[in-house]
Amino acid sequence: MPRPSTGARERIVAATVSLLRRGGLSAAGLNEVVASARAPKGSLYHYFPQGKAQMTADALEHYRGLVDAQLRAALGGRGALAHRVRRLFRSVDARMAVVGYLESCAVGAVVLDLGVDDGALRARCDDVLSHWSRTAAGLMPELPAARRGEAGRLLVTLLEGAQLRARAQGDGRPLSEAARAFAAVAAALSAPSRTSSP
Amino acid sequence: MPRPSTGARERIVAATVSLLRRGGLSAAGLNEVVASARAPKGSLYHYFPQGKAQMTADALEHYRGLVDAQLRAALGGRGALAHRVRRLFRSVDARMAVVGYLESCAVGAVVLDLGVDDGALRARCDDVLSHWSRTAAGLMPELPAARRGEAGRLLVTLLEGAQLRARAQGDGRPLSEAARAFAAVAAALSAPSRTSSP
Repeated sequence: MPRPSTGARERIVAATVSLLRRGGLSAAGLNEVVASARAPKGSLYHYFPQGKAQMTADALEHYRGLVDAQLRAALGGRGALAHRVRRLFRSVDARMAVVGYLESCAVGAVVLDLGVDDGALRARCDDVLSHWSRTAAGLMPELPAARRGEAGRLLVTLLEGAQLRARAQGDGRPLSEAARAFAAVAAALSAPSRTSSP
Repeated sequence: MPRPSTGARERIVAATVSLLRRGGLSAAGLNEVVASARAPKGSLYHYFPQGKAQMTADALEHYRGLVDAQLRAALGGRGALAHRVRRLFRSVDARMAVVGYLESCAVGAVVLDLGVDDGALRARCDDVLSHWSRTAAGLMPELPAARRGEAGRLLVTLLEGAQLRARAQGDGRPLSEAARAFAAVAAALSAPSRTSSP
């Protein structure tokens, strides 16, 4: 086997992330990844000797870092919380618009493919979603400390649901509506007596 | 070909719905449906002469009706809005718990599998999500008329996101948190001046 070229591993991981975003586990088969990454098939076995499970796990870990950076850039910047949340959902929209709303969250797409034998992968997906929730919670210092955890989890739930709906609609309006809704919840979390129903 | 038995079509549709809930389009192949429905393969061609696209469309239409009834039963009943919304998310949780959180929304799972050539199916999924949003909006008469549409869309976004997270976690907490969040947004929609960020 020729020595895989520099960057082959990075191309394989990026291609796997993109295929997972597009269609979950069933879209990211070894042949699809090799074709998309323009990598020799031997390089898959070189970098991922444990096969598809390892390749998927590494891709999800890479994607975890990408979204983590996106959360930090948007929520960690200046401005009121509603403004920072809007910036986050706009950045997600921009990423989806570039690919014609044909890709959404890689973790979300994998979760909706999980079968009874995918316990380890399920736990990994849950870890990534929980990690993003904690990252988001830590970037909302203006919320009462006791409510930040729930706010972070809700933000990720809204991101997942809104990406799914944006993909169905083929436009970003569900993302801007979700950002507005989160701002309303954040205001309610800051003033618990206002959370009662109308 | 023997005449398909009474109920074969219903069994095929129910099996397709269940497979779509489990793994989207890639899980609901003709062979999987035949095996799961315990139906002769000939009955597929009898009832769905246009093949998998027609079978998927009919299954999604059936599922649309099921969720519509669930929305009406939960949101259309007695009680304050927060209470009715809690009832809805609890009924979704109960449906997921029965299958060990291995099935979620059929439409959501299909949406995250859609490719560039699936325009007609994408439009159908969007139609179903929009239909549920309008059904939900009509069942929240205590909200200002001008805000009900947005509230209905948000409810469906939260349902999709929370089902995805419940499936990743293997428990229903994301659903109860989403119900609480929706109640907070509903309160804010009723008092627009409170929607500003903290």
